[in-house]
Amino acid sequence: MTGERTIRIPVAVETAAAGYDVIIERGALARLAAYSAAVAPGRRWAILTDTTVRDLWGGAALASFESAGLEAQTVAFEPGEASKSRATWAALTDRLIELGYGRDSGIVALGGGVAGDLAGFVAATWMRGVPLVQAPTTLLAMVDASVGGKTGLDVPAGKNLVGAFKWPAVVVVDPTVLRTLPDDVYRAGFAEAVKHAAVADADHLAWLEAQAGALLRRDESTLAALIRRSIEIKAAVVSRDPVESGLRAILNFGHTVGHAIERQSDYGLPHGFAVAIGMVAEARLGERLGLTRPGTAERLASLLARLGLPVAVPPDMPADAIAGHARRDKKNRESRIRCALVTRPGEPARTETGEWAIPVSDEDLRESLASL
Amino acid sequence: MTGERTIRIPVAVETAAAGYDVIIERGALARLAAYSAAVAPGRRWAILTDTTVRDLWGGAALASFESAGLEAQTVAFEPGEASKSRATWAALTDRLIELGYGRDSGIVALGGGVAGDLAGFVAATWMRGVPLVQAPTTLLAMVDASVGGKTGLDVPAGKNLVGAFKWPAVVVVDPTVLRTLPDDVYRAGFAEAVKHAAVADADHLAWLEAQAGALLRRDESTLAALIRRSIEIKAAVVSRDPVESGLRAILNFGHTVGHAIERQSDYGLPHGFAVAIGMVAEARLGERLGLTRPGTAERLASLLARLGLPVAVPPDMPADAIAGHARRDKKNRESRIRCALVTRPGEPARTETGEWAIPVSDEDLRESLASL
Repeated sequence: MTGERTIRIPVAVETAAAGYDVIIERGALARLAAYSAAVAPGRRWAILTDTTVRDLWGGAALASFESAGLEAQTVAFEPGEASKSRATWAALTDRLIELGYGRDSGIVALGGGVAGDLAGFVAATWMRGVPLVQAPTTLLAMVDASVGGKTGLDVPAGKNLVGAFKWPAVVVVDPTVLRTLPDDVYRAGFAEAVKHAAVADADHLAWLEAQAGALLRRDESTLAALIRRSIEIKAAVVSRDPVESGLRAILNFGHTVGHAIERQSDYGLPHGFAVAIGMVAEARLGERLGLTRPGTAERLASLLARLGLPVAVPPDMPADAIAGHARRDKKNRESRIRCALVTRPGEPARTETGEWAIPVSDEDLRESLASL
Repeated sequence: MTGERTIRIPVAVETAAAGYDVIIERGALARLAAYSAAVAPGRRWAILTDTTVRDLWGGAALASFESAGLEAQTVAFEPGEASKSRATWAALTDRLIELGYGRDSGIVALGGGVAGDLAGFVAATWMRGVPLVQAPTTLLAMVDASVGGKTGLDVPAGKNLVGAFKWPAVVVVDPTVLRTLPDDVYRAGFAEAVKHAAVADADHLAWLEAQAGALLRRDESTLAALIRRSIEIKAAVVSRDPVESGLRAILNFGHTVGHAIERQSDYGLPHGFAVAIGMVAEARLGERLGLTRPGTAERLASLLARLGLPVAVPPDMPADAIAGHARRDKKNRESRIRCALVTRPGEPARTETGEWAIPVSDEDLRESLASL
């Protein structure tokens, strides 16, 4: 029949192919607008941030735009994980429209992981996407969340079950802002840094063990070195697998259990704390399965504890409940729980078929949790 | 200071770079699963569709998955533009989780423009993105909405103000399903086909004028040729500008006014009807501005009217109200209304600085509307 055929539509998305810079620099916040304008065409900028960070650093961020002659304003939401909701996302997108922002806008995510995920998802979905600048203000967001393009919202059934990949135009890391972080929020950031070392760099793990004291004192030079190495590791992984179809899964080490614990705590436990416990549990699980070198869980637990992080399941939390949440993890396939595991510090484990997400039984998971 | 530097993160997203096929084939719905499985790894498929299309074609779509040995089910929403809401999106994403779908799922958008936009946005944002197959069942979705990767939701302030680009894995067009379309829904599809001709192919416009009778009779061979040529034109444009940073803006011809009219009708007027009026209004606007060859509006109006589409602003709709909605269009920049215009049939207009979205004054827009 005339007119019947296949038409092939090539799609080459330049913005996704180009990549982005992570600037790590003391005082970078004062140059936020310059770094933003250098890579993104936004005529008006919305700085999405929580009310706490707005009060601490919103002024400095705004001032950078003013001195660059660019229009900007802060749009704030309530601090806390509860803001990573569809409701806050809806309110923020409506608010941008009310404020007269158009498709020629840019969005800055100023804050910790919640700001990055929430503002990132706004940037991914508002007007079918506007430029995003990540300006992390917590150690956790600096070493992890601001890099890699993941954005997301929590829904009643779990964390980040709605979200999108959104590559930032640039990530601006100013380590000086860490000085205003509350101690527990600061320490929570170490979890992802330890994770990067655990899955990819044994030398860096040894360095962390040697520098634990300096890190707890917030020594600036040690901290900058930590952030740099952590981002290098993460960048190397996400560059090779941007949308988590393979290797990137190794960054989920500690996260299947970590997310389940967070969920069971009703998000009362900070993400970094839950991931610290999760890493020890998943290292123990790997040892139980004969995949992980014995002693790995103990070594990680020792370092994490020295860095002020919890390494045992909270006493009121039944292993069954945690395993139940893990069963609903979005990393699962074929209805089996999957975990990223390590063979030894610095080396991710792989199945015989080459997969980085290892299927585990409910029972093995429960037993490993019970043994912590 | 040690550790301060810039880290560059290259991001190469293969799925976005590879492109996708549009299959145009009578009976293709029976091979929907085969076409889907050939390009996407989904282990379980969710066919998102409205209840009307589910009752007409959901069985055939499901049967194709069954005969291919793949698990699938239909998940239906209420028919109509009102379903393109954050609420329906939230309900669908929650429902997929409830049904036990995981990241190894695929989504089929079976239906018209609403299904494509809504299911497409679900696929873009659920689990940070799962494979999407577009299976359009209206003429409008076949010639336009299913191709190009746009997905979106309507919000109180306007249409598609929330959304994302999501490249389908494949688009499966089965022209035989058009036989169940109600007459007004069928005719509405001609608007985008005329638009493609108007902005890119004068010969195709002449062909449409010659074939209007056969098209109204739903002659299958003529229809297949129409769909093929329309998709070819759209594909050529979106391939060159996937995320609407430039040339793709020409596909908005008729849409600044069209969307404003839809909004003013509270979405009572079908999209294609509103775009038909919008094209005549914007052609008139171009003539008024001296950009469009005189007689173009008249020629388009004549063809659209023959194809059973409205070409005048509804009598109860004040030009002021339409202009007011146009001012809030997401295509605007620097607070000016922008329209895609043509210099003559088949030729998009461009500003002296090379832009395809032409700034227009409120007054010129109002006067053009008043003259219809």
